[in-house]
Amino acid sequence: MARATRWEALLDVAAGLFSRQGFPATSIREVAAGAGFSKAGLYYHIREKEDLLFHICCGSIEAILAEVRPAIAEMAAQPAPARLGAVVQAHVRFFHRHPDRLKVLVHEMGHLPPVQRLRVEELERAYLDLIRNIIAEGQKTGSLAAMEPTVAAFLLLSLLNGLHAWYDPGGREGVDQIAANIEQLFLSGLGTGTPLAAAMNNVNPSTRTPA
Amino acid sequence: MARATRWEALLDVAAGLFSRQGFPATSIREVAAGAGFSKAGLYYHIREKEDLLFHICCGSIEAILAEVRPAIAEMAAQPAPARLGAVVQAHVRFFHRHPDRLKVLVHEMGHLPPVQRLRVEELERAYLDLIRNIIAEGQKTGSLAAMEPTVAAFLLLSLLNGLHAWYDPGGREGVDQIAANIEQLFLSGLGTGTPLAAAMNNVNPSTRTPA
Repeated sequence: MARATRWEALLDVAAGLFSRQGFPATSIREVAAGAGFSKAGLYYHIREKEDLLFHICCGSIEAILAEVRPAIAEMAAQPAPARLGAVVQAHVRFFHRHPDRLKVLVHEMGHLPPVQRLRVEELERAYLDLIRNIIAEGQKTGSLAAMEPTVAAFLLLSLLNGLHAWYDPGGREGVDQIAANIEQLFLSGLGTGTPLAAAMNNVNPSTRTPA
Repeated sequence: MARATRWEALLDVAAGLFSRQGFPATSIREVAAGAGFSKAGLYYHIREKEDLLFHICCGSIEAILAEVRPAIAEMAAQPAPARLGAVVQAHVRFFHRHPDRLKVLVHEMGHLPPVQRLRVEELERAYLDLIRNIIAEGQKTGSLAAMEPTVAAFLLLSLLNGLHAWYDPGGREGVDQIAANIEQLFLSGLGTGTPLAAAMNNVNPSTRTPA
């Protein structure tokens, strides 16, 4: 395996153990054994167990942002709902590939030393800001309905971060279906009723039956 | 203070400590001191620390169900969206009164002994079923749009359980506003677009402009 691939596999093994047993109850020896490293070999990559937790937490948000940022830049001319759809797709697909990493981000982040924790919170804030800015812009241009943009952004993140509590990536509902459901819920929920307006614009007003 | 009130205050103190420090790192002595009990006095109410966690977890869901069940029974004649609104209201208000209890339910439940954990999971399942049944019924009668009812129920619970990650009950956004936002998002998101359908039914098809 290439070095980057081994590192990624190591993070998935560590995330699996942390998410099942909790970070404090997992030893570095178990992580090494699970990933097929010697303990000395593992210490070539990290200084201490907290480094694994840090890379899992940061790496998850960075990976989602690395996919989202170019996608929404390319879609700059498209309305806000389409760009929010790209965020939902990237997040759900990352969860589908690495469910334990996002579980660990939600549940174990409190075990990070303060400086590393601040860095993860910075990334979370950047992700929140990205979503909030798209929502605020969509509200300005009329493609999204009114709601405090920070609240709306946190509600979208709740839908996405809630996946770990119920969604089984190996289960009956496919990843495309789940992403579509979250898009439907959030975008219709924050929609402006454009379909109605658009449809009615195509109708000769004189033929409308009064309500 | 009446006995029931002292017990409720004790659970809030314990939930605050568990949510800030984690369950394993909190001693029974700290809980007793924070709640103004002697350690012996605390052991009059509970056998071991896990009992506090169990009562926090069970009690939260039971309190929400105890408010929701009579409310939706009274609303039996009303459409599903109105009854889901009652669920949202009860949940958001419980969170507002006892934010730490729901944080502990989400984050610390894994520390329960297996039998107690099963009991909490039973209650969670009952709550999920209650929501899912309203959704399924709303879809049958046409007041809610199609989406796998279990998925839709988990998405509503994600919006509600996500509150602990961002909503500050003492902050700028009032509890009424937050409950209204979650209702708006979920109920419009899972709406049937009735306004459009109703409007189009009132229009002579021959006058519609093709899409």
